Formats: sequence, C-alpha cells, structure tokens
Amino acid sequence: MKSYSIALLPGDGIGPEVMREAEKVLAVVQRKFDLNLVLNQFDVGGAAIDKHGHALPEDTLKGCEQADAILFGSIGGPKWDSLPLDQRPERAALLKLRSHFDLFSNLRPARIYPGLEALSPLRADIAASGFDVMVVRELTSGIYFGQPKGMAGEGEEEYAFDTMRYSRREIRRIAKIAFEAARLRGKKVTSVDKANVLVCSRLWREITEEVAKDYPDVTLEHIYIDNATMQLLRYPNQFDVMLCSNLFGDIISDECAMITGSMGLLPSASINAEGFGMYEPAGGSAPDIAGKGIANPIAQILSAAMLLRYSLGQNAAADAIEQAVQHALNDGYVTAELLSAERRHEAKSTAEVGSYIAAKL
Amino acid sequence: MKSYSIALLPGDGIGPEVMREAEKVLAVVQRKFDLNLVLNQFDVGGAAIDKHGHALPEDTLKGCEQADAILFGSIGGPKWDSLPLDQRPERAALLKLRSHFDLFSNLRPARIYPGLEALSPLRADIAASGFDVMVVRELTSGIYFGQPKGMAGEGEEEYAFDTMRYSRREIRRIAKIAFEAARLRGKKVTSVDKANVLVCSRLWREITEEVAKDYPDVTLEHIYIDNATMQLLRYPNQFDVMLCSNLFGDIISDECAMITGSMGLLPSASINAEGFGMYEPAGGSAPDIAGKGIANPIAQILSAAMLLRYSLGQNAAADAIEQAVQHALNDGYVTAELLSAERRHEAKSTAEVGSYIAAKL
Ligand SMILES: CC(C)[C@H](C(=O)O)[C@@H](O)C(=O)O
Ligand SMILES: CC(C)[C@H](C(=O)O)[C@@H](O)C(=O)O
Repeated sequence: MKSYSIALLPGDGIGPEVMREAEKVLAVVQRKFDLNLVLNQFDVGGAAIDKHGHALPEDTLKGCEQADAILFGSIGGPKWDSLPLDQRPERAALLKLRSHFDLFSNLRPARIYPGLEALSPLRADIAASGFDVMVVRELTSGIYFGQPKGMAGEGEEEYAFDTMRYSRREIRRIAKIAFEAARLRGKKVTSVDKANVLVCSRLWREITEEVAKDYPDVTLEHIYIDNATMQLLRYPNQFDVMLCSNLFGDIISDECAMITGSMGLLPSASINAEGFGMYEPAGGSAPDIAGKGIANPIAQILSAAMLLRYSLGQNAAADAIEQAVQHALNDGYVTAELLSAERRHEAKSTAEVGSYIAAKL
Repeated sequence: MKSYSIALLPGDGIGPEVMREAEKVLAVVQRKFDLNLVLNQFDVGGAAIDKHGHALPEDTLKGCEQADAILFGSIGGPKWDSLPLDQRPERAALLKLRSHFDLFSNLRPARIYPGLEALSPLRADIAASGFDVMVVRELTSGIYFGQPKGMAGEGEEEYAFDTMRYSRREIRRIAKIAFEAARLRGKKVTSVDKANVLVCSRLWREITEEVAKDYPDVTLEHIYIDNATMQLLRYPNQFDVMLCSNLFGDIISDECAMITGSMGLLPSASINAEGFGMYEPAGGSAPDIAGKGIANPIAQILSAAMLLRYSLGQNAAADAIEQAVQHALNDGYVTAELLSAERRHEAKSTAEVGSYIAAKL
C-alpha cells in the first residue's frame, strides 16, 4: 500500500469548513484506491497570527517540508489588513510558501460547466459559445519578488519602486509547462504580455517562441494584456491555455474565474520542478459567509483531486473525484450560489455537498 | 474672435478617415461658436515611418509644440510590428508624446449608452443595471517609464527588468484629478492597486487617503486590480471614477471599453498640468477595416469635444457636439457595428455619420 503525507492548512474564513469536506473525500479515496494518506493539520494565515504571532509559524513550514504535498484552504480577512505588508497573511504565508518551495508553476483551470451557463456574467450567446481555459501563471518571479523593492528620495519626490524581472530560465520553464498542458487539451497557447512597453515582455515573447519550436503540434499566439482582458469578454472560447507572468496571471486568472460565474468550483495548483505542490481553491477566504455552512466545498475538493494527480501521480483517484463532483453538479446537489432564484430553496449545505460527493465515490 | 491652433495627427489605419469627420464637425463648430480654429496636419506613426523614417518626425513634434492641443487619430499596424521596440509607433510616437508634454492625466470615459445595452458582452440583466465610469489613468510614470529598464546577466540567467516607480508628487497630482472628476459625477473614487504585493501600491494608497481628506464630499474605496477585473463583470454599476496607475489603467480602461460593447464611441484625453492635451479615440487603428468607409467616426468626434472642453475651455461647443452625437445615436444614424443583425442594412458610412452629426450641430 502506497503511503503519502499531506499537510492540511485550512487557514481563515471558509477555509476550515471546506477543508473538512475535502478530508471526507480523501478518507473515501484512501479506502477505494488502497492508499495510505496521512493528513497533518497546521495553522496558517490570520488564525496563525492570532495563535502564534506569525502567519507562517516554524512548525507549519516544517510540517509542509515533511509532507508530499500541501492542501491549502484560504487566508486573510479584514482583521489582519492593517498589519505591515510583510506580516500580512498574503505575503508572510502565501507568497512565502510559494517562494520557499519554488512553486513556480501555477495552474488555474476555469470553465463554464455545461448547464451552468446562466451563472456567467457574460451575455447568454457568448456564454453559450463555451469557455474552458487553463491559465498557466508564473508564480515565483516577476514583480512579486523582483529586487530591489522599496522607498527612496525625500519630501514630495520620495518614491516607491518595485522591480519586474524575468530570466530566460524562468520564462523557459513556465512556457514548457504551458505547452505540455496545451498538448493534453486544445493544443493552443496564448501568451499574454505587454511587449510594446516592457523589456520583460520582449524576452517573454522571445523565449516563448523558442520553446514553441519543440511543440510543432501546438499553436502559439501572443496577446497584449489589455487586449486579453477585452477578448476574454467578447470571444472567450478562442482561448485554451493562457500563459502569463506572475502579475498578468493574477489578473487574467481572476477575470477567467469570474467569467465562469462559479468561483466556488475552481481549484488551483502551484507546483515546483520536483512535483511537490500546494493546492487551493481559486476563491478567497470569504469572511462574510464563513461559519454559516453555506460555502461551496467543491473548489477545495477539486484541489485535492489536483493534488492526487500532479503531486502523487494518482490519476485514477483524481478522475474519480472529478466524476463524483460532476455527479453532484448534474444532480443539482449543490450550494445556494449555483442555483437560480427559483430553485434556491433546494440548496444543500457545505457538509451535505461534501458527504454527497464522498458517497458518489 | 478667439483663435486656437490644433495639431491634427491622423496616423494609421482608420485614423485618417475618422479624422476627416472630426474636421467636418470642427468646421461647423467654428462658425457656430464664432471661433477661429486653425487646423494643421502632421504625419505620425507608421505613416511617418514610411515617409520620413521616424514615427514622430521633428516637424510633427514642433507642430504639436506650437499648437494649443493635439487631436490624434490612431497608430500602428502589423506592418511596423517587427521593428525594434524603440522605433515602433507605440513607443516612438505615442509614449514619446505623452512624456514630452508630461500628459500625466489620462481620462477615459466608458458608458453603456441607453438603448445600446445589447452591445455589451455582459449578461442582459447586468448590462441593464447601467455602466458609466470615468477611468483616470496616470500616464507618464509607473512601469512604462521607470528606470532602470534593460537586460543583464548571461546565458540562461540573463534577465530582463523593468522598474515600476511612483513618487508622492506623481500620485498626488493624478489622485486630485480623480477626486475633481468624481465631484462632477457620482462622487465616488475607486482606487485600483495591488497593495498586498507592491510597494508602489502601498504609497499609492497612502497618498490617495491623504488627498481624500480634501474632498469630504467624495467617497474613496480601494480595490485590488485582480478583484477590480472581476467586480467590473459582476457589479459594473458600483463604479464611478476608477483611479489607476499607468499599467493598471491600461488594463482596466480596456476592460471598461469592452464592457460598453461600443468601442467606436469612446474618446479619451491626455492632459498636462497646463491644460495642454492630446485627444484620441479609445480604439486602435483597426487596420482590418481601414479604407472601407465603415469605421465609426464618433470616438474621434467626441475626442474633439473633449479637446474643446479640457484644453480650450469651450464647454458650450463641447456640449453641442455631444448632443449632436446623441442625436445620431437616438436616430439610429450609425455605422454597422452599432446595429443589430436585422437592422444592419440601415448602416451608414463613416462619412455619412460625420456629415449627419455636423448637420445636427
Ligand atoms: C493574495 C495575493 C497576494 C495573491 C496573488 O496576488 O498572487 C492572490 O490574489 C492570488 O492570486 O493567489
Ligand atoms: C499602445 C500602447 C503602448 C498603449 C498603452 O499601453 O498605453 C495603449 O494600449 C493605450 O492604452 O493607449
């Protein structure tokens, strides 16, 4: 029997309650696929600040280092927003984990599920044309981590500065991920940049073209970030894999998530060169609905599926979870935000949805 | 009789044909409002590269310096895309003009015109809720112009870098523009940043808060750029003035333009501290439809109206043009892209629309 250890970091807001549902599902997966999954839970984010004074305590980081993968909930909330930048959950925990484990490859699938077109904020005819995109975002470089970063000068001329920075190596490795992903999907990569203004984008374009030569079966297109945000609204079905730098991927992946209209369904993966990864829902900690038992657990459950697929190589288990989720969707066994006003009274709770999916396995 | 000189820079693609219609309208304005408008035409963009070897010839720059304002068409096209970054129309002409005249204040209004909701790519109920935003974009600093910018290192570790940079003074002056604009509109400023990651955004937030103190009648909200791209799709009518740095404004203003679904109606203004400005349509040079007489001249005509308002202080003339445009829209006297498929055969040509608006004056 194969044995794996998974670090669970539920975090803040709805994190803990949706994490419980993912645990239910993983418990069934264990039995069904004859795996030994050791789940160890650790504090992170605002919850960790409150308990230990730091968003990413030493114990949590150690726990993650000893695990085969991290299943992450969500972090942050108004309570911790006024802390200095470096102590806030986002930077101190999320960005720290990304850079510590060199999780450069961020996969953010977004699709309009058949039958859920009405949830999309796009016009009916546009949503009906279909939308199924994989955003491949570079996650450990660019303007998020580039040095120098700081303040200089005096008086009104005092200025802040951040550095956007990309090496050939950094661009090449994420471009390869995008082309590999496209090979298993629609065979098209759209690389998002601002090559008419940024030197980083010029290099991005150059390297992407180079990598493309090794993938003659995949089409490569380039698009400016400003145009991409527009095209996504008008002709969303032209895209397959969207390859983005860190900042542009942040923007594009959120736009894609909103286009689906069902953020509660979207998982994400952040993976390093060794296949170690951190998996988390695309949505945030949603403090406004936390603790009410109405949060959609599906994104967290699908994040567990991605974990099984990408970090543990357990494709059959991942497929099974994804099918079970599809069942719940087909059966309309879902939380309120996925239902039309007329059917809202049929809404299921977070725990009910989790149990249903576990049972369907 | 007041006399003003306007530099006309038609540029590439549809630029020249829509500029002709703006000239028609300005000719009527002259008579009606007893003004002497001296229009001098200059080469710019790809057309100038072809003729003089440079996207912004010395003569053009001099002509602009001697004028009271610039009416700009559009530039660029596939023909000049492979030139080195610094020689391309965008950088060599557009960005050069912006920085040369310190046109730091970029106003990009975007609205869904009543009756044209069906053009919006947003879901009918969302488009019906209304959309009327003024994007105030900082245009002469940030990552577009920040130094250093370049390449360093060797082999696979060779890297590109760009610097995002904002001083207190630069942020303060554009924030003031946003609050002034909000005062004349919905009294709300939404400042777009990425303060959970960028030092520039932290300073942006700090200064924006400071400026807000002088405008107690205006509400200030902050939103992360990633969240802004989402909220615009789901709750577009929550926004009034959106205050953005150069890069974020590029992205947000294009998303807003696409949300209206009628890019051919959107003008823009780029103004300096003395009120000198450059006025241009929000859309691009659209080489695919150039020369066919089907391009919508309204954005160019409304740009002329903004010029009269902001650089020449001729509000009555600007109002009159805007009303004449509203007439053409109400009468359905418009180009094809504004009409539904069933009414497409009623489409008017570029010249017909221009003449109609001139006549309505
Ligand atoms: C919380 C924030 C730092 C983070 C990011 O910008 O990467 C988030 O928006 C995301 O996309 O994961
Ligand atoms: C052409 C390009 C350099 C320009 C910009 O990014 O500012 C354009 O997209 C715009 O928004 O005016």
